[in-house]
Amino acid sequence: MPRFRLTVAYDGTDFHGWQKQSAEEPLRTAQMVLEEAVRHTVQEPVNVMGASRTDSGVHARGQVAAFTCSLDFPPDRLAAAINSRLPDDMQVRDARVVPESFSPISDAIAKGYSYRIAHDRCDGRLPPLFARRTTFSTPYALDPSLMNDAARRIIGEHDFASFTRLNHGRETTVRTIFDCKVEAAGRRLCRIDVAGNGFLHNMVRIIAGTLLEVGRGKLSPEAIEGVLAARDRSAAGPTLRPEGLCLMWVDYGQA
Amino acid sequence: MPRFRLTVAYDGTDFHGWQKQSAEEPLRTAQMVLEEAVRHTVQEPVNVMGASRTDSGVHARGQVAAFTCSLDFPPDRLAAAINSRLPDDMQVRDARVVPESFSPISDAIAKGYSYRIAHDRCDGRLPPLFARRTTFSTPYALDPSLMNDAARRIIGEHDFASFTRLNHGRETTVRTIFDCKVEAAGRRLCRIDVAGNGFLHNMVRIIAGTLLEVGRGKLSPEAIEGVLAARDRSAAGPTLRPEGLCLMWVDYGQA
Repeated sequence: MPRFRLTVAYDGTDFHGWQKQSAEEPLRTAQMVLEEAVRHTVQEPVNVMGASRTDSGVHARGQVAAFTCSLDFPPDRLAAAINSRLPDDMQVRDARVVPESFSPISDAIAKGYSYRIAHDRCDGRLPPLFARRTTFSTPYALDPSLMNDAARRIIGEHDFASFTRLNHGRETTVRTIFDCKVEAAGRRLCRIDVAGNGFLHNMVRIIAGTLLEVGRGKLSPEAIEGVLAARDRSAAGPTLRPEGLCLMWVDYGQA
Repeated sequence: MPRFRLTVAYDGTDFHGWQKQSAEEPLRTAQMVLEEAVRHTVQEPVNVMGASRTDSGVHARGQVAAFTCSLDFPPDRLAAAINSRLPDDMQVRDARVVPESFSPISDAIAKGYSYRIAHDRCDGRLPPLFARRTTFSTPYALDPSLMNDAARRIIGEHDFASFTRLNHGRETTVRTIFDCKVEAAGRRLCRIDVAGNGFLHNMVRIIAGTLLEVGRGKLSPEAIEGVLAARDRSAAGPTLRPEGLCLMWVDYGQA
């Protein structure tokens, strides 16, 4: 049976996250909406599996999803047919055939996230009106170069127990971060880009919250090492709100 | 009694236009939402008058509104206090004291609008997901330089009867357009900027629809003169959807 891999983008504002809910009155989730559009397209029940369980309000430009069905479809026409059934806050940007064994979760070798912050928004300097759904706003003035100094210290294999919420339910909290950088992106706007082999629950939002503490001078860049060593959630900064976060890509190597 | 002039921005997507509705269950309009925030701030009933009655779904970066109240407020603190009472899709960007006689409508000497079009969005080239609330998408490939050629022909004093909806209810359909230009704004994206001493109902959206016909080759730039001369709505192109349109500024000269 043919298996398809989809690259999916969505504006997470009006989704209750990726994961399908099992409640009797199910909330609108990205997985549910995509699965429904795929079912109508291939005209059979399917299970659509996603690479990342993005939280409520988190966006995606490169979520990866996969499903198996009994009939073969030309991938381009499959994507167009699914898109014609999707609401305007979700898009299938690519479709391709993959081996039947393909798993969007366990075959992923890296994921990239981006977090956008509008800063120094106080005394009449307002949050960005038209980008408010995709940008976190803070009244604090941030120093992106201090934040970048701190970001570099997160790169490598570390125990990220300080950077996940309690009761995370994972066997190990060790992950490898391949890259983490902070760049100014215009006046009073900055972007955190982070790539790694895997991410714990809320990990990017806590990294962003910790870098924000550095950017406003509450924490020194050098202090990041102590935060990592503490293996204690309370050592890190706050979990920033979801609207600034976007899943940018998932990498499967040559697969 | 002091009179205040506010510069107001809003994401028009979730507003039923500017104008307050008098129905028993009033629809959410920009005027209503602003007036409510102003009333709570100055703690007395006020009438907030706007420069432009933007249609449902049309955005504003520089709408101008004015109201009179009995107490004086420092304009900066007034703006901050109103903003604290506004929802996140509306912002007061400036507040100042104006003469008691100030009218945002009749004192305006010019207004500027911008219309954003994503074009050539077909065969898997999707509409812009994150800009979909502020950008009109069309499958046609457009030629911005042809459109600009046509746009220049609209400049000047003309009878714009072809560029307004029937039953417009205005005494005269003569208006002066100070500037009209079309620029490419990235790949498969273009922007129409138009400034004039006044605009008829739907006028910018019909100008945009007519320039779109030129851009896709259905109408020659020279044909614009005939469209103007016809003084007949059916001679012009379609009224484009509201989401691409934004009221950019209103000019009051030295006042």
